[in-house]
Amino acid sequence: MFSVIKNDKHFNARVGFLNLPHGRVDIPCFMPVGTLGAMKGLKHAVLEKLECNLMLANTYHLYLRLGIKTVEKYVGLHNFTTWNKNFLTDSGGFRVFSFSDLRKIDLKGVHFKFHIDGSYHYFTSEGIFAMQEIFGSDIIMPLDICSSYGIDYNEANLYTNITTNWASSTFKSSKNRKEGYNGLLFLITQGNFFKDLRKRSINDILELDSPGIAIGGISVGEPREKYLEILEYSFLLIPKEKPRYVMGIGTPHYILNAIYYGIDIFDCFNPARITRHGSLLTDNGIMCIGRKEYKDDTSKVEKNCICTLCKRYSRGYLRHLIKSKELFGIVLASEHNIHYMFRLISKIRAAILNDDFLNFRTSYLKKYEEENFDE
Amino acid sequence: MFSVIKNDKHFNARVGFLNLPHGRVDIPCFMPVGTLGAMKGLKHAVLEKLECNLMLANTYHLYLRLGIKTVEKYVGLHNFTTWNKNFLTDSGGFRVFSFSDLRKIDLKGVHFKFHIDGSYHYFTSEGIFAMQEIFGSDIIMPLDICSSYGIDYNEANLYTNITTNWASSTFKSSKNRKEGYNGLLFLITQGNFFKDLRKRSINDILELDSPGIAIGGISVGEPREKYLEILEYSFLLIPKEKPRYVMGIGTPHYILNAIYYGIDIFDCFNPARITRHGSLLTDNGIMCIGRKEYKDDTSKVEKNCICTLCKRYSRGYLRHLIKSKELFGIVLASEHNIHYMFRLISKIRAAILNDDFLNFRTSYLKKYEEENFDE
Repeated sequence: MFSVIKNDKHFNARVGFLNLPHGRVDIPCFMPVGTLGAMKGLKHAVLEKLECNLMLANTYHLYLRLGIKTVEKYVGLHNFTTWNKNFLTDSGGFRVFSFSDLRKIDLKGVHFKFHIDGSYHYFTSEGIFAMQEIFGSDIIMPLDICSSYGIDYNEANLYTNITTNWASSTFKSSKNRKEGYNGLLFLITQGNFFKDLRKRSINDILELDSPGIAIGGISVGEPREKYLEILEYSFLLIPKEKPRYVMGIGTPHYILNAIYYGIDIFDCFNPARITRHGSLLTDNGIMCIGRKEYKDDTSKVEKNCICTLCKRYSRGYLRHLIKSKELFGIVLASEHNIHYMFRLISKIRAAILNDDFLNFRTSYLKKYEEENFDE
Repeated sequence: MFSVIKNDKHFNARVGFLNLPHGRVDIPCFMPVGTLGAMKGLKHAVLEKLECNLMLANTYHLYLRLGIKTVEKYVGLHNFTTWNKNFLTDSGGFRVFSFSDLRKIDLKGVHFKFHIDGSYHYFTSEGIFAMQEIFGSDIIMPLDICSSYGIDYNEANLYTNITTNWASSTFKSSKNRKEGYNGLLFLITQGNFFKDLRKRSINDILELDSPGIAIGGISVGEPREKYLEILEYSFLLIPKEKPRYVMGIGTPHYILNAIYYGIDIFDCFNPARITRHGSLLTDNGIMCIGRKEYKDDTSKVEKNCICTLCKRYSRGYLRHLIKSKELFGIVLASEHNIHYMFRLISKIRAAILNDDFLNFRTSYLKKYEEENFDE
């Protein structure tokens, strides 16, 4: 099911694969975010051509915007979306807790108010599993509490315990699943930024022996050193036999560091989101296409890229589209950034296979360190 | 340059072609609107595959949003956009007069204020030609005054005279064009909804003997009967040797009626614009995909359509994307509606060639008459 083909000689980075119900996924794996079952402006065919085998969708959004009954009627999310590769569905815990003044936690789950229409809902750990079972998700994520950076120990302790309890209950649900359903449950470790809580969370979760482990609750606004500290600390506690997933990171340097610490899967909303400001990923760092210097620039964004944008259109034309808020500009930029991410990951895999990951990481990060990747 | 292959036996509808600098255009011709040199969310390749040979762009928008110098630097609009088929560029007169409280007309042109940034500009009939010469437009439109429905005779008379004067002056510019530039000037007839003004305008314009004639200032909010009355009246005054263009109509029934009155070219913003409300063109009329009945509908929008949407995705999935304001929904709907329009035009051409246009029109309009095509 999960195999490591190659460990970097000196570091924790590794290459391997994970067999899922809708096909094999190579790791390290960049997972594009298709929250509602679609990527920003991109036809499925674009992702299929890139051999993207795993997309992230979100239970919270699908439940609220689409409704579980519709997915049931279509006999699953794959049929509904015609995405015939794998889906990892996040539970939406992160979203619930992003609107924390609107929710109330109890032992079984969380009551919350949908900020768009004011309607009230109740997510339980068991219910969240049941929904993802209806989706036919290839990787299921349990309900968890993603707490903020800076809360005190007692609060963090409480949330960590609740997350662990929910994990146990989801795990039980997964043992009583429908026959024939083979989605993998990845349990989530939390613990905020307290090492002893992280340790306890990981140990408790490991006891359940789920087929994959996620590190949640980092990259939530803490300083980068703090992120790396908790990432490294957590990584050391997770046995190498488990595929490891870090939730919600998105920039090339965060990804390179995650891979450095032995992370196998990560989701990235960022490459699509930054397109609306005309930010393009390139090997020379972020290109902000809105800058004046690109106004009359007849060259391509990247010479060696084979996306629709780079094969045909100039920087000046893209700048014009983005500045004029033409939909077509977003479509082109979105496709480029996704192409870029897949190219980057494939270079990383090659570097690991050639025991060259350290060099690659060092020279790559030099270009990105000084760039502002934020929106 | 312009040839009619076939006139419908009983009606004015006709099939033919127009040779332009960037290739032959079959008529009747549906011209998609790519105001800024791009169609709503669509890659050029989609239009190329549909054998679209003529796109409309807008001088007003390109001047304000992009700047003429950039187009000059790229040696024309075709190079800038990589659209290697024909461009018709509208002068933008319609836009200037849509914001009529912000403009001041004189004999040479019009002063106006750009509503976005408050900057002041001056368009002259000669300047408008010069810009389109820089664009390398395949069909050039002169500056004109597109007046509103309901104004009085004196005002309409004044605007008609000014439009004719500008047409003369643009015509002179076109005689002094750069060597090697072969764009065709289509002069615009106006006259509001007064037949004698229409007649005088057409006669004056015809004296200049431009290679094409446009009927401007209809479909501006008047009742449909009024539109048809002026269309028929104008058509009868334009000799059959001239290609005829009706500006700014967009719905299937307006188009069918225009073709019925011998119109060869029309531009259509509508098929792209209506997508944001989830309106889809089908042979059974407009499908409003947002309706509840499509929520769990697993069938395709149209069985026989070969667009990306109809080849792969269900009505329920599209509805979900449109309702959730996912960009991908607009991209799919936009491609479908453009596919639909090209299919419709090709059916119309076939019907004319088979002397079956009347039947086709009657049975087609039955389905559309009762539908609301408005946004």
